[in-house]
Amino acid sequence: MRFRLTPRDDAFFDLLAVLAGHLAPGADLLAQLIGDDGPDRERFGRRLREAEHEADDAAHEVLRRLNQTFVTPFDRDDIYQLTSALDDCMDAMEAAGDLVVLYQLHDLPPGVSTQVTVLHRAAELTAAVMPKLRTMGEDVRSYWIEINRLENEADRAYRELLALLFQSPRYQESPAAVIELIKLKGVIDTLEQAADAFERVAHLVEALYLKES
Amino acid sequence: MRFRLTPRDDAFFDLLAVLAGHLAPGADLLAQLIGDDGPDRERFGRRLREAEHEADDAAHEVLRRLNQTFVTPFDRDDIYQLTSALDDCMDAMEAAGDLVVLYQLHDLPPGVSTQVTVLHRAAELTAAVMPKLRTMGEDVRSYWIEINRLENEADRAYRELLALLFQSPRYQESPAAVIELIKLKGVIDTLEQAADAFERVAHLVEALYLKES
Amino acid sequence: MRFRLTPRDDAFFDLLAVLAGHLAPGADLLAQLIGDDGPDRERFGRRLREAEHEADDAAHEVLRRLNQTFVTPFDRDDIYQLTSALDDCMDAMEAAGDLVVLYQLHDLPPGVSTQVTVLHRAAELTAAVMPKLRTMGEDVRSYWIEINRLENEADRAYRELLALLFQSPRYQESPAAVIELIKLKGVIDTLEQAADAFERVAHLVEALYLKES
Repeated sequence: MRFRLTPRDDAFFDLLAVLAGHLAPGADLLAQLIGDDGPDRERFGRRLREAEHEADDAAHEVLRRLNQTFVTPFDRDDIYQLTSALDDCMDAMEAAGDLVVLYQLHDLPPGVSTQVTVLHRAAELTAAVMPKLRTMGEDVRSYWIEINRLENEADRAYRELLALLFQSPRYQESPAAVIELIKLKGVIDTLEQAADAFERVAHLVEALYLKES
Repeated sequence: MRFRLTPRDDAFFDLLAVLAGHLAPGADLLAQLIGDDGPDRERFGRRLREAEHEADDAAHEVLRRLNQTFVTPFDRDDIYQLTSALDDCMDAMEAAGDLVVLYQLHDLPPGVSTQVTVLHRAAELTAAVMPKLRTMGEDVRSYWIEINRLENEADRAYRELLALLFQSPRYQESPAAVIELIKLKGVIDTLEQAADAFERVAHLVEALYLKES
Repeated sequence: MRFRLTPRDDAFFDLLAVLAGHLAPGADLLAQLIGDDGPDRERFGRRLREAEHEADDAAHEVLRRLNQTFVTPFDRDDIYQLTSALDDCMDAMEAAGDLVVLYQLHDLPPGVSTQVTVLHRAAELTAAVMPKLRTMGEDVRSYWIEINRLENEADRAYRELLALLFQSPRYQESPAAVIELIKLKGVIDTLEQAADAFERVAHLVEALYLKES
């Protein structure tokens, strides 16, 4: 653990934790939306959009505070980047849920739920690390190592899922079936972008760690 | 409005305004190219490419000046990022026009013109804000709020346009029709990337505002 | 040539050169994988993945050193960004090779090999420039001009390749043929992302040059 000699506004860490705290509930709603192939799906979609708006508000709260504070714990630009990257995680999850509703997708393959499970784990780790940025100890390091491991796993699962769908006879039956596959690929790609967004948060935290150490 | 005590080379704001000034005419050419399903389309394509080259030259002019100036109004890196992001807006618009020509797309759906209308509005707002970076007043703030609003609108329109095309019987008629849809999606995705590039410019301006305030 | 008055840890340039030195051999393995439509393809895939792991290790070596060094030649953040961007080049090349294997693609069109040839040239230029960052002379400038030229060429070739495939009767024969086209497009897009990653390295070097000059 390091001790700091510079004055700092610790409220930033709390505000970032509030923002990051919206991510795991967002992933939960996304999992429910995907798991429910019935009339409640749209309701989960609305709740996911609400969660995204709440995360937006939390992000604006960080930036408002940033605009009013003379001394910040890190460079202003770094807090801005981190806030923006956390927001991107939520946006990508909401976009994926929205596509499932808009495209009226049914019978989503199990690989899609696996993608969301990985996002949920990344969201928990990300929320847990925010308060630890105060002291920048060794547990911050283990956070980004774990996120990188998860992201490699997600990458691999993503490619194998697409390969599996591409060789399935089901989508080769008709032109309409190919369009179903293209829609499904749109959702799967968006979930992969959400995983990339979590990795970008981890990269920013890693860069911050190196800068502050 | 703030007053500055540091010496600054105001020419940067003029050079950035020249660069950003190419964006709305570029969006105009793109709208004409898309609206003209006849023999003039290629001519608009050539003019759009010329506009893109002119924007490139304007970007290099900013960087040349950056390389020769000791005292800049902002961090060198921020001016570099902003220049590069403005250039990306033009590149994505040119790429979209080029794909329409190369893919020989006919009967583009009205949603595509709507995308270009949003890009045109974003281009106007972006060009108008450049000279205001000098003073970093409240109108800079209203610029990025408006761009974010436009981008949210563009996102929504983008997803709904794809959902509409995916359920159209027209593209389910034959394998060749599905390929037409894939080509069309390539154009629509590239227009969405142009909207994202304008949002990135707005993010950089917002970060600059927070840094400079 | 410029002379520097600040103390610097020259080992960074050597470590970055080691990392960048993995890129051209990676492009070679990718070319071999693509050129071999037989039983050896998977073997090249495994060797490409090993090369990617070695590049990962080299990247971690840079970051480990960054974490231990008080005075670095550039901002810590810039070295972090550069390391991360070099790593992205390798990741995208490995991903492209992996997709060729996973998707079991045969008869890849010659345009794909052309994409890899451009990546190989970009990799050589990138490895060659790393030791020159020490002195930041004019040859660094000619490096990024050449990468930008290559990237423009790659962009054009990429779009024309897709346009060619989209109008080929071969992929319009059946729904299964369209899926073959989608798989092929996945590989071609990933190779284009590798070219973009090399361009991002060049952008970072250009920004560094402007900052340091």
